[in-house]
Amino acid sequence: MPKAVHVTFLGGLGEIGRNCAAIEVEGKILLIDCGLMFPDADMLGVDLVLPDFTWLLERRDNIVGCIVTHGHEDHHGGLSFLLRDASFPLIGSALSLALARNRIEEAGLLDRTEMIPVTDRERLSIGPFDLEFVPVTHSVPHALGVAIHTPQGTILHSGDFKLDLTPVDGRLTDLAAIGAIAEDEGIRLLLADSTNADQHGHSRSETTVGKVLYDLFHAHEGRRIITTCFASHIHRIQQIADAAIAYDRVVATLGLSMKKNVRLAREMGLLRIPDSHLRDIDDVGDLPPGKVCVISTGSQGEPMSALALMADKRSKFIQLDEDDTVILSSHPIPGNEMNVSKVIDGLMRLGVQVVHSGLEDVHATGHAKADELKTYHSIAKPQWFIPVHGEYKHMVHHAQLARTMGLAEDHILLCEDGDRVQISDDGVRKVDRVPAGYLYVDGLGIGDVGHGVLRDRKVLAEEGVVVVIAAVDVDAGAVVMGPEIITRGWVHADEAEDMLDECRQVVGQELKEALADDAKADLEAYARVVRKTTGKFVSDRTRRRPMIVPLVVEA
Amino acid sequence: MPKAVHVTFLGGLGEIGRNCAAIEVEGKILLIDCGLMFPDADMLGVDLVLPDFTWLLERRDNIVGCIVTHGHEDHHGGLSFLLRDASFPLIGSALSLALARNRIEEAGLLDRTEMIPVTDRERLSIGPFDLEFVPVTHSVPHALGVAIHTPQGTILHSGDFKLDLTPVDGRLTDLAAIGAIAEDEGIRLLLADSTNADQHGHSRSETTVGKVLYDLFHAHEGRRIITTCFASHIHRIQQIADAAIAYDRVVATLGLSMKKNVRLAREMGLLRIPDSHLRDIDDVGDLPPGKVCVISTGSQGEPMSALALMADKRSKFIQLDEDDTVILSSHPIPGNEMNVSKVIDGLMRLGVQVVHSGLEDVHATGHAKADELKTYHSIAKPQWFIPVHGEYKHMVHHAQLARTMGLAEDHILLCEDGDRVQISDDGVRKVDRVPAGYLYVDGLGIGDVGHGVLRDRKVLAEEGVVVVIAAVDVDAGAVVMGPEIITRGWVHADEAEDMLDECRQVVGQELKEALADDAKADLEAYARVVRKTTGKFVSDRTRRRPMIVPLVVEA
Repeated sequence: MPKAVHVTFLGGLGEIGRNCAAIEVEGKILLIDCGLMFPDADMLGVDLVLPDFTWLLERRDNIVGCIVTHGHEDHHGGLSFLLRDASFPLIGSALSLALARNRIEEAGLLDRTEMIPVTDRERLSIGPFDLEFVPVTHSVPHALGVAIHTPQGTILHSGDFKLDLTPVDGRLTDLAAIGAIAEDEGIRLLLADSTNADQHGHSRSETTVGKVLYDLFHAHEGRRIITTCFASHIHRIQQIADAAIAYDRVVATLGLSMKKNVRLAREMGLLRIPDSHLRDIDDVGDLPPGKVCVISTGSQGEPMSALALMADKRSKFIQLDEDDTVILSSHPIPGNEMNVSKVIDGLMRLGVQVVHSGLEDVHATGHAKADELKTYHSIAKPQWFIPVHGEYKHMVHHAQLARTMGLAEDHILLCEDGDRVQISDDGVRKVDRVPAGYLYVDGLGIGDVGHGVLRDRKVLAEEGVVVVIAAVDVDAGAVVMGPEIITRGWVHADEAEDMLDECRQVVGQELKEALADDAKADLEAYARVVRKTTGKFVSDRTRRRPMIVPLVVEA
Repeated sequence: MPKAVHVTFLGGLGEIGRNCAAIEVEGKILLIDCGLMFPDADMLGVDLVLPDFTWLLERRDNIVGCIVTHGHEDHHGGLSFLLRDASFPLIGSALSLALARNRIEEAGLLDRTEMIPVTDRERLSIGPFDLEFVPVTHSVPHALGVAIHTPQGTILHSGDFKLDLTPVDGRLTDLAAIGAIAEDEGIRLLLADSTNADQHGHSRSETTVGKVLYDLFHAHEGRRIITTCFASHIHRIQQIADAAIAYDRVVATLGLSMKKNVRLAREMGLLRIPDSHLRDIDDVGDLPPGKVCVISTGSQGEPMSALALMADKRSKFIQLDEDDTVILSSHPIPGNEMNVSKVIDGLMRLGVQVVHSGLEDVHATGHAKADELKTYHSIAKPQWFIPVHGEYKHMVHHAQLARTMGLAEDHILLCEDGDRVQISDDGVRKVDRVPAGYLYVDGLGIGDVGHGVLRDRKVLAEEGVVVVIAAVDVDAGAVVMGPEIITRGWVHADEAEDMLDECRQVVGQELKEALADDAKADLEAYARVVRKTTGKFVSDRTRRRPMIVPLVVEA
């Protein structure tokens, strides 16, 4: 009777980002992805969010490797943090590893991190794991799914994918490979991407975007064209470049990651832009506008991105006006709508003609929609299914979809981050919970910003802070210095001088009375008096609740 | 030669909200709407945003009235603030005035505010203004456009409208009235709603939503149904109630504004729900789930709304589970996507079946899309046109649309908040700029939170604050007390005790050295030493830049 196999979800189930799953066979752990997440608006000042690594680090010596399914940061961006405290090889396509290595190199961890490139359909053993890599089409080239042959049968992880029948590089999601695995040995458990499970129909092929781009380059002939898309979307960049070159334009990249990825993809032979048509951004200023196509970062309206700087007239490289056309070949990720909208408004104020996915079909998603998922399920025919990668609602829709494809309700598990699932002869079931909270990265700190600090920042953000300082002589029952009041973010101190004066008096009076009491108290008690009196005054006068920070010291 | 007429835009041009325009004829001012705007995510702690009233208040005695085109707060929510310092009558449909009076009553200004109800097609003179009210269909009943007959010809303000050929109450946007005005006297200047100018085609009729609701109530028979929509969308509420009653359910309202508006609309005869089918929310708990329909607030995912509380298991009234269906009969306003998404995820975690506009056609917009705007322009045939009400991009699209309808480019003006436009025998042109910045309301304060305070809050929000206090004896060259460090939102003080200790030492040492210098400085100079040393320490150790607030006092 084969031993049980376990799957532990550390991120990506119930959120978009920080995808991370751990498969355990015979005491060894194989990670599938280790991504980061960009913070929500309410995670104030946080730069990045990681999976909680507590459970993994307790088992660090058992980790035999991490599969990087593809080159997006929400799948590999956590590695440069985890690898500080653990060491294991990374396995993925050459491009995925090349894209993953940047942050690892920055963190000085490259030397001790083995990279194992694999090719489509390659079969590889690592520790007790027998792996088979399945080509999938996604919004970055050379993405992979993986079949893991275990003593408890085959686990198929779809990776992030779509079923694009006419992808730019002709590399389709290999449904035949999945069909062969399904027929030959059967798929015990399917883990599949849920991002677009609530979208009807079938996603558009990436090559349809190319046709739209050609039409736009035709319609905007003679004008300078600035385009923007994700820097890792090499196929989109290819199609932009193809349209540009067809209309006799040179291409210049703008933004660090765009420059870097274009160089990398050209070196790897994944992007064809002839030298004759590639220019440095500094060298296109003198060319006629109709001969130039800029490919820039900033498609999500990121405030310091190249595009946002152009829209705000702060770009060192490009000044835009009514002779320019900007094409946003992208769609706002949920949460970025307002930033993108502001960039578009800024561009339009400059007189720029702006084309975006709300107006023209200049973008296609990289994630399978409902009908594609149904096709995938119909071929994989898993015995058990766990939807992964998506907000909770996406996973619920994916579970419903699996039921319509004939899978019994009790063979579908809705899991969340932290769930540990056992695959045994008895079937698949949740057996445990492991720590899976948010690990915040802020500046140099990993994990030192917790919920307490974020709660403080929220109060500071919405109401500001009032610091009240006084020195007292407890024995003499006197206020020796102060109270002094320092305030930030509550009211403008210059304009509220009278109110601050009055506050000082009111608080000073209360403090004096407290000190005059024969029953002497400790400094903390007097600080409480200051806090309470100040809080009441502030609330009465302004109906606001800034953070009150009292400091009472013995003189 | 008739005197010039002026139009001054105080809000709503380049943003969604705080709509406000002032028409001047013979030195008198007529306002068209005076709305509020809900703050952006970066307006930290701000409750509301108003038009800048500076220019109006300098002319307060000349204001003869304000037309409330319809009952949405972005059109009347500024009045309870402006009416504190000015007095003038409000003119609008009975329903618009009834919806506007709530906030005015709360502010204690109702007694001195005259309300002048007008009916469809009514002609009314007020001061030098000769007004004609044009019925329009919108997402609140009894909305109006207005034609203002002036010495410089007729100005037509569209109000917020759509061309719904089958509205719930049969009250269509009166294109015949507009045609008659256009034919008889011509429209000198058109001001028209741009909100959906960048959307292709024609908006769906409100009654199509009713059919979808019927189908949903059929499909979810036997389950409890909770619906949510805007509380002022009386026609949507009517359609929900109709579907509920058709399937033999009683209706209960949840949320203050929903309760209030349902009562008001029933009293005014605008909403037909028989007493037999209306229950208090407290009285539906014992009924079979299939006999209940709750209509709740919270369609925008507002964190403290009735729906958000239900999703968060904090509702006092309703506990949801897998036997419930929630229908969000709404669409997220830009900026609210994440809040709505979180509410949906919360509901789904409870096992609730959730229906929203991404899945079914349970919502229809209240604003005309491009083809409706073309129809409107084709009938109004204005000599001049200024797009209003929308982000800048919407107004640009509306301007382009007007050109495709044959209006000459130099007869279309793209204006923004603060632009003052003159209509004279020479035509229509921008002549002036008036103050039109954001006026922030935070708690009791109006305008006391400015950009400085918001800038402070942004730093506090993202990085926190570090207060460093020391008492010194300048003559003795000694630090008498401290430095003490108080920090909030930077790092968790309990967990960073060692670092704070070290910071105290480093700053104390620098301060001591500065004091030891023979050349005595003032306290501000010593405070600068503290700020600089602390800032460097904090940045080196954490690569964060919290607000450093130094306080050095003479002991």
